Amino acid sequence: MTDSLSSTRSIVKYNQQQFSTLEDEIVIEFPLTIYINNEEFATMVCSPRDFAEMVIGFLASEGVIRFKKEIKDLTIDEDRGFAYVELHSTDIKNQQYFSKRFIGSCCGKSRQFYFQNDVRTAKTSMSSTTITAEQCISLMKKMQDSSLVFKNTGGVHNAALCSADELIVNRSDIGRHNALDKLYGHSLLNGIAVRDKILVFSGRISSEILTKAAKIGVGIVLSKSAPTDLAIQLAEDLNITAVGFIRGSSFNIYSHPERIVLDQTNETKEESS
Amino acid sequence: MTDSLSSTRSIVKYNQQQFSTLEDEIVIEFPLTIYINNEEFATMVCSPRDFAEMVIGFLASEGVIRFKKEIKDLTIDEDRGFAYVELHSTDIKNQQYFSKRFIGSCCGKSRQFYFQNDVRTAKTSMSSTTITAEQCISLMKKMQDSSLVFKNTGGVHNAALCSADELIVNRSDIGRHNALDKLYGHSLLNGIAVRDKILVFSGRISSEILTKAAKIGVGIVLSKSAPTDLAIQLAEDLNITAVGFIRGSSFNIYSHPERIVLDQTNETKEESS
Repeated sequence: MTDSLSSTRSIVKYNQQQFSTLEDEIVIEFPLTIYINNEEFATMVCSPRDFAEMVIGFLASEGVIRFKKEIKDLTIDEDRGFAYVELHSTDIKNQQYFSKRFIGSCCGKSRQFYFQNDVRTAKTSMSSTTITAEQCISLMKKMQDSSLVFKNTGGVHNAALCSADELIVNRSDIGRHNALDKLYGHSLLNGIAVRDKILVFSGRISSEILTKAAKIGVGIVLSKSAPTDLAIQLAEDLNITAVGFIRGSSFNIYSHPERIVLDQTNETKEESS
Repeated sequence: MTDSLSSTRSIVKYNQQQFSTLEDEIVIEFPLTIYINNEEFATMVCSPRDFAEMVIGFLASEGVIRFKKEIKDLTIDEDRGFAYVELHSTDIKNQQYFSKRFIGSCCGKSRQFYFQNDVRTAKTSMSSTTITAEQCISLMKKMQDSSLVFKNTGGVHNAALCSADELIVNRSDIGRHNALDKLYGHSLLNGIAVRDKILVFSGRISSEILTKAAKIGVGIVLSKSAPTDLAIQLAEDLNITAVGFIRGSSFNIYSHPERIVLDQTNETKEESS
């Protein structure tokens, strides 16, 4: 068992019309199966790091728990790839809805959720935080500078929970959603107030990522990549500001642009209005 | 309901220190829930195209069906996002194993599968096909040239089933695995012999992608991106040649390099040996 996100392997390289053998860095993919009160719940394929945070964040995201105190015991068997969760309650909430389709009312009046657990756990943002355009660009740069594994192996997604000016915590994982579950678990374990925080993410903002952001409770999501149409609809509905394509000195705002301002004068105006 | 992979939306752009409003192309994400014999089976989030191929490929991949003829009826309700599958058999194979962890024997003697359905459906490749290094580079270029949506929206994965020289069929999807399910469904629906074919893929070769390739039945997987360590272990075990980082005129071979040769002379030697 390694604590690293990547390992070294011998490969055959083709270059300038000939083959050669060399050592290359390869990203690690690790299956972790979660048992709750001795029953198999789910298998996550992840980067082998921050297991406890990931499991707790995942369970909160699925609506199984809401607070750290609901967990009686958590044991990780790293050699075999198992996480054993013991809850104080013997009644596992929401298990019957796990990956079950949510059928909304017709006519477009309902939210764009498609899983029943999301309806129960994703919250409309009450955040009144605003940040400047230059802070968006600066936060993305800070996250990228702090994450070097992607450059070496082309393999992991990075996510960070930030204040307007600084990274508070950043996590990497081969699975897009795992990186966010780790942040969620970290904020639950450490009692971090998330409403005024910003989520910075290296990957595409899919509906799943946007829903996770709503569950974590942030009001602003910044991404280097593009969102999907379904993610934008969810962001509009859940009062979340989705910013994408942060590259160089430009970016796009896809929903609730009022939280991104030109300078602090605007911000003060916004807050006092 | 649209047949396209992307739609147009109004966004706010920040550039040269000012905001402006413009129209942008956004990739579509569509939830499709599959019912088998009137029971909910799974929800796939996908690009809204080639639904029947995707559903059939997914069911084959999960071990629910093996042949097209096992399907009595397939109806897609595109407006509501439902696929209704009626099987001749009332006994849905493998449903009890869906997403259940496979516990292999210890000591590294077992395969690296972590889902029970994969153990049942992924096959060791019997392919004796070889291709030249230049064909690897040429096939990747052909797939990229034929797929333009990624360039516009930064949003979809592309996959193609190929002979040594030509693309036979290519499919795009926002979900990595969906693109492969569509190829699998296409090959089942059209009775394409896959053993001598090559799978070309735009994204990372994860264990899930490698397992899908083994289920489809190809012996060679070419990717623009990197594989994971678990995917390489699976490829070695399932006798699949995994090639990654095909960029410009170079690439890396991660497993079973004997299928990639310098020229046809080598290939002939290889086959007669």
